[in-house]
Amino acid sequence: MRVGILGGGQLARMLALAGIPAGLEFVIVDPKADACAGGLGEHVVGGFDDRDALDRLKSCDRVTCDFENVPADSLEYLHGAVEVRPNAGALAAAQDRLTEKHLFVELGLDTPAFAPVSSRPELAAAVEQVGLPAVLKTRRLGYDGKGQAVLRDGEDLEGAWQRLGGRELLLEAWVDFDCECAVTAVRAADGEIRVYPLTRTVHRNGILALAAAPLDAPELTRAAAHAVSRLLEKLDYIGCLSLELFVRNGELLANEFAPRVHNSAHWTIEGTASSQFDNHLRAVCDRPLGAVAARGRSLMVNFIGALPDAGALLAIPGLAFHDYRKAARPGRKVGHATLWAPDADAMDSGLQALRQVLPDQLPSAAETLWSAPLA
Amino acid sequence: MRVGILGGGQLARMLALAGIPAGLEFVIVDPKADACAGGLGEHVVGGFDDRDALDRLKSCDRVTCDFENVPADSLEYLHGAVEVRPNAGALAAAQDRLTEKHLFVELGLDTPAFAPVSSRPELAAAVEQVGLPAVLKTRRLGYDGKGQAVLRDGEDLEGAWQRLGGRELLLEAWVDFDCECAVTAVRAADGEIRVYPLTRTVHRNGILALAAAPLDAPELTRAAAHAVSRLLEKLDYIGCLSLELFVRNGELLANEFAPRVHNSAHWTIEGTASSQFDNHLRAVCDRPLGAVAARGRSLMVNFIGALPDAGALLAIPGLAFHDYRKAARPGRKVGHATLWAPDADAMDSGLQALRQVLPDQLPSAAETLWSAPLA
Repeated sequence: MRVGILGGGQLARMLALAGIPAGLEFVIVDPKADACAGGLGEHVVGGFDDRDALDRLKSCDRVTCDFENVPADSLEYLHGAVEVRPNAGALAAAQDRLTEKHLFVELGLDTPAFAPVSSRPELAAAVEQVGLPAVLKTRRLGYDGKGQAVLRDGEDLEGAWQRLGGRELLLEAWVDFDCECAVTAVRAADGEIRVYPLTRTVHRNGILALAAAPLDAPELTRAAAHAVSRLLEKLDYIGCLSLELFVRNGELLANEFAPRVHNSAHWTIEGTASSQFDNHLRAVCDRPLGAVAARGRSLMVNFIGALPDAGALLAIPGLAFHDYRKAARPGRKVGHATLWAPDADAMDSGLQALRQVLPDQLPSAAETLWSAPLA
Repeated sequence: MRVGILGGGQLARMLALAGIPAGLEFVIVDPKADACAGGLGEHVVGGFDDRDALDRLKSCDRVTCDFENVPADSLEYLHGAVEVRPNAGALAAAQDRLTEKHLFVELGLDTPAFAPVSSRPELAAAVEQVGLPAVLKTRRLGYDGKGQAVLRDGEDLEGAWQRLGGRELLLEAWVDFDCECAVTAVRAADGEIRVYPLTRTVHRNGILALAAAPLDAPELTRAAAHAVSRLLEKLDYIGCLSLELFVRNGELLANEFAPRVHNSAHWTIEGTASSQFDNHLRAVCDRPLGAVAARGRSLMVNFIGALPDAGALLAIPGLAFHDYRKAARPGRKVGHATLWAPDADAMDSGLQALRQVLPDQLPSAAETLWSAPLA
């Protein structure tokens, strides 16, 4: 079976690496000649709105995406010629933070207070409604903390408006969370849903830094599974989707969702029998879903900007090193490592070793990452 | 780091799939334009004795092989220009069954009685010495049971000679074994050795059909680890090597070894934190060795000739399906599946499901594969 992927970054790379062993072949559309997934299939160098490039995808049995901001026109153009999964509506919902918020509300999922902002007076009104502190975000094309400004008091409004104004914006109440987490689930065309264990996430400068799984929090896990399942059903979704959540006073608040494989679930490559990449492709290709239970404990550490020394990392028992073969650049995700251990004691040993190699990347009480603070 | 591979079959394919995530790049030499590893790196279409093709490998940091019968001249040609691992001597020892046998004897490893045969009178003398039943084998270029004839009584000699005579041969005593097993180990340039758990193997028509690991036989495991370690040291070996063994009356008899990654250890992809492919590359590239302990139980089933229906297999929890993308052909290894389970009970359930899909490929008492018959 031939699978087309719009986007040739590390998510496409890991999708291809999961699919090739199982006999899938890939056509990857990406404008960058050095796209890091390019070598793992037929690489069509072209823009995501390039009709010639899109035409090349029509030879595929399925098309999927490694990012959510695929132009709606392109999806429309492919519609009918080839099966695109997830569907255009799911991508559209994730492309606009306001639509996303309304969806959460419609599904009865708690989410931070919000208000749309499209003018300076609306910003003042939104602050009145939502309160401070708050976060002003572009409604579209934001990721990894880009297109955001934190408003702590009234004096921050003007600077934030100068920086972000002129685009459609959303003001969100600042959440003084106890921790962040994410839940990834996969849904098949027949409606079957499988939910991976809840993952604790830690961000730095708006970018995911760490993901620890499975989070030992049965009630939160149940609530998150319920929430993500409702979302998948509502969107008539096929494939993997990740829902990012805040935990505050033992309750979940929906933050945002990604209609694709997601950084918070990279640990599933080593930590489950069937990774998010494998299961996304199984769903997209109408193959039976795979097992999502966690085996042991996993900790994923992102490498932002540049890679650390591979040799020192690989000397740590149970560590898998992932190098995306991307040029070093500040703020860019260039690789990750997953430390896997069969149990908590083995993980504690692994953490000690990891701390020697990456002293600045682990929090002081890293051993407690697998338990959520509960109110 | 760039790694050249002589040979572009499924072993090269799985090496590349293990190395690409960790940032390695591959140059694959294979005369077949449709070599199944070809798409996973720079594919140099050329013979293994083609100097132009070999020259392309000189740009690599390391060169390794996916089969043992690389022409000695080619290794000689590469010597000095690029580091080839394992070394030429190890490949030479495995290329000739007589050299291999002498090596076993020199290391004090028990092996079935044998005698070299290069003429019809020598065959008669060898039968006298070794006894019947016995197996007449070509000394070179045999694999998967090819180039072999079983001699049950004196009347079989002439037919076997007609078929195999004219080449350098070896007569080996037939071993009425209780079971077969294999041990895979990896050795680094600094001499560190790590040994994977002992694997039970089942052959059909001379071709590996099943591999079950880890074999619950502590004494055999220790003995096999000792044997393979001595072999690695003797050969000053770098990379993975598999030693195939007979078990008879609770004792091991060395059968043959493969100086490369090996079919009997494909289960390590799912069944360990660091597969044979990963560890072979770690050793070849001077990276630290990875963890070789088995997690749970694994059963690998080979697909010979043609693939079964992927959908039915993938519906089995914990099953990983491997499709080498090779055209169907009788006797050809075209894929495999590994059933992984966290414990014996889960494996029993998995076996029941697997038996529904592959009724002819599992023995009646498949549940006992993980325990060796002991005298």
